[in-house]
Amino acid sequence: MKLLYLSIPEREKVWKEILAPHGIEMIMGEAAVTDPASITHIACWEPPEDIARYPNLEVLISVGAGVDHMPPLPEGVALSRTLAESIEKMVRDWCVMGVLATHRDLPVYLDQATRGEWVQHAPNTAKGARVGIMGMGRIGQLTAQTLKSLDFEVGGWSRSGRPVEDCPVYDQAGLDAFLARTDILVCLLPLTDETRGLMDAAFFAKLPRGARIVQAGRGAQLDLAALRVALDAGQITSAMLDVTDPEPLPADHWAWSDSRLIITPHIAARTGYEEGARHVLAVMQASAAGNPIPGQVDQKKGY
Amino acid sequence: MKLLYLSIPEREKVWKEILAPHGIEMIMGEAAVTDPASITHIACWEPPEDIARYPNLEVLISVGAGVDHMPPLPEGVALSRTLAESIEKMVRDWCVMGVLATHRDLPVYLDQATRGEWVQHAPNTAKGARVGIMGMGRIGQLTAQTLKSLDFEVGGWSRSGRPVEDCPVYDQAGLDAFLARTDILVCLLPLTDETRGLMDAAFFAKLPRGARIVQAGRGAQLDLAALRVALDAGQITSAMLDVTDPEPLPADHWAWSDSRLIITPHIAARTGYEEGARHVLAVMQASAAGNPIPGQVDQKKGY
Ligand SMILES: NC(=O)c1ccc[n+]([C@@H]2O[C@H](COP(=O)([O-])OP(=O)(O)OC[C@H]3O[C@@H](n4cnc5c(N)ncnc54)[C@H](OP(=O)(O)O)[C@@H]3O)[C@@H](O)[C@H]2O)c1
Ligand SMILES: NC(=O)c1ccc[n+]([C@@H]2O[C@H](COP(=O)([O-])OP(=O)(O)OC[C@H]3O[C@@H](n4cnc5c(N)ncnc54)[C@H](OP(=O)(O)O)[C@@H]3O)[C@@H](O)[C@H]2O)c1
Repeated sequence: MKLLYLSIPEREKVWKEILAPHGIEMIMGEAAVTDPASITHIACWEPPEDIARYPNLEVLISVGAGVDHMPPLPEGVALSRTLAESIEKMVRDWCVMGVLATHRDLPVYLDQATRGEWVQHAPNTAKGARVGIMGMGRIGQLTAQTLKSLDFEVGGWSRSGRPVEDCPVYDQAGLDAFLARTDILVCLLPLTDETRGLMDAAFFAKLPRGARIVQAGRGAQLDLAALRVALDAGQITSAMLDVTDPEPLPADHWAWSDSRLIITPHIAARTGYEEGARHVLAVMQASAAGNPIPGQVDQKKGY
Repeated sequence: MKLLYLSIPEREKVWKEILAPHGIEMIMGEAAVTDPASITHIACWEPPEDIARYPNLEVLISVGAGVDHMPPLPEGVALSRTLAESIEKMVRDWCVMGVLATHRDLPVYLDQATRGEWVQHAPNTAKGARVGIMGMGRIGQLTAQTLKSLDFEVGGWSRSGRPVEDCPVYDQAGLDAFLARTDILVCLLPLTDETRGLMDAAFFAKLPRGARIVQAGRGAQLDLAALRVALDAGQITSAMLDVTDPEPLPADHWAWSDSRLIITPHIAARTGYEEGARHVLAVMQASAAGNPIPGQVDQKKGY
């Protein structure tokens, strides 16, 4: 088994320390590959241009939590995304911050601060505020747990509507009912053909007037121009976005200076060096043993 | 028993609905008092100028959580502050937001946004970050609970050092040790002679370099000029303040435009109309029955 690594070189030392004791050879960059047929695993953010070059590839591993940027893989090649508790908790923390910031009118106070205005608005209690989480997977469930402990009324939406303890989960067909009961919307969906462009004008119109948005999924799920119209109309009060379309958001984009938006540059999480290597190790050990691949993505569903 | 009410008139209707069924007469404002000797309780934010005018006063009740603005009371008059779960939880929520915002570098990203800069900084995990809460009373303990559930390493500091489950609490003499282990400092102290001016240059110097501050106590506990020096020196990375000295912060105050500060205008909590009235009712019933007064303040300690 040989690993081809295609990502930031800074990880090399830590990864080698973790992989070498298990007899795993790690090749840094495609230029260093002398025998493509020897490569069984690739770990990357940006995939290689020509995957067919590696006839014995078993698993392509995304070093991040998402795989939406991966091309279709040849028959028989598995796709894995990095599972790491620290990623999930970092994103949960960012979402909790986003819910509290929008719920407690931080955008309004930041705007007032630019004019030195000390004007108080009645603070909202978490109790009675309905949070709706789109995507009740690993991160959505963690986020729901914390927000419930703060007294928010939390509901979820997922493809399957799979039940989650103490939290009503709507299935795909229940989207309208889910949106109608959601004052603060948190998006934690993977980007797939189904979720691309999901948050558009019609979508915003289905939320209660004055709803807030917290977006930690993927930029292409939310139509920024439609969001602007909904903000101008008062349909949406404010939004906190960690992901945008495009990314990076150009310096002259209107969204940067819109006082109703708080934007962070896709920093809700970053995979730790060690955790990334441990995931790759677990994947390679599972493929050697013929066990289920950790973090394996259903390539038909796209997540 | 007669209640003199000295605060915003908007509360009158709700309060009367709650108090009248218990035979409690409520007089709105000092001008309406015909017989000062009949007044047994006063509920107020701003206290009357001449408390001695009310010879049979039993309890002065602050309609807020603090009593630092109350004058010394005549012998035998009790002082009570409003206890309300909703206040405590609102302040807890604000503090959790403050900890996450400073920990996750929101001030840096807000500043970058003013220039349209998409620059990522490695995100911090809660695990390994040490939060220190000054004031382990009703709100401090609630805040500790949530932050622990997010994996922060939480310690507390209080006058007594009274133990709190699963959280090391330092007593007054342990301040230096407490500060030395605190990456993110949350202040939830009452304003007393002992806490006035507590956070000054010497105090900031005892924190680890780059510490963050979340201030929800009272403005006069923190020396803003000293904070500015500590920010300029890199000793403090950023701070989120709900209370300032003075309040309101003047429109031309430097702090409004300092990118390392996030300021909200004392809105961490506001007493709900019903909860305020229920507290007054509980106090009046307790005094009639000779029971301990809810929310009674130790006037020697000042909280
Ligand atoms: N901003 C960041 O830095 C950052 C970092 C990490 C992750 N993320 C985002 O967070 C996403 C979620 O991560 P995760 O680990 O929680 O993923 P996960 O465990 O795979 O969960 C995905 C959830 O989305 C639901 N879902 C997928 N497609 C759907 C559709 N078309 N309609 C309704 N629900 C749908 C799934 O439904 P089922 O339960 O029915 O399968 C599942 O509940 C990632 O895909 C990524 O986009 C962002
Ligand atoms: N920003 C806002 O909107 C807002 C709203 C509500 C409250 N607050 C602030 O939050 C404060 C705390 O409220 P709370 O209900 O949690 O009060 P609390 O239950 O009375 O708790 C006060 C805590 O402070 C500690 N303390 C008092 N003086 C001290 C000193 N000199 N040195 C060290 N510790 C000291 C006490 O120690 P012991 O445990 O040993 O007694 C106690 O743990 C209020 O007084 C107010 O200033 C702010």
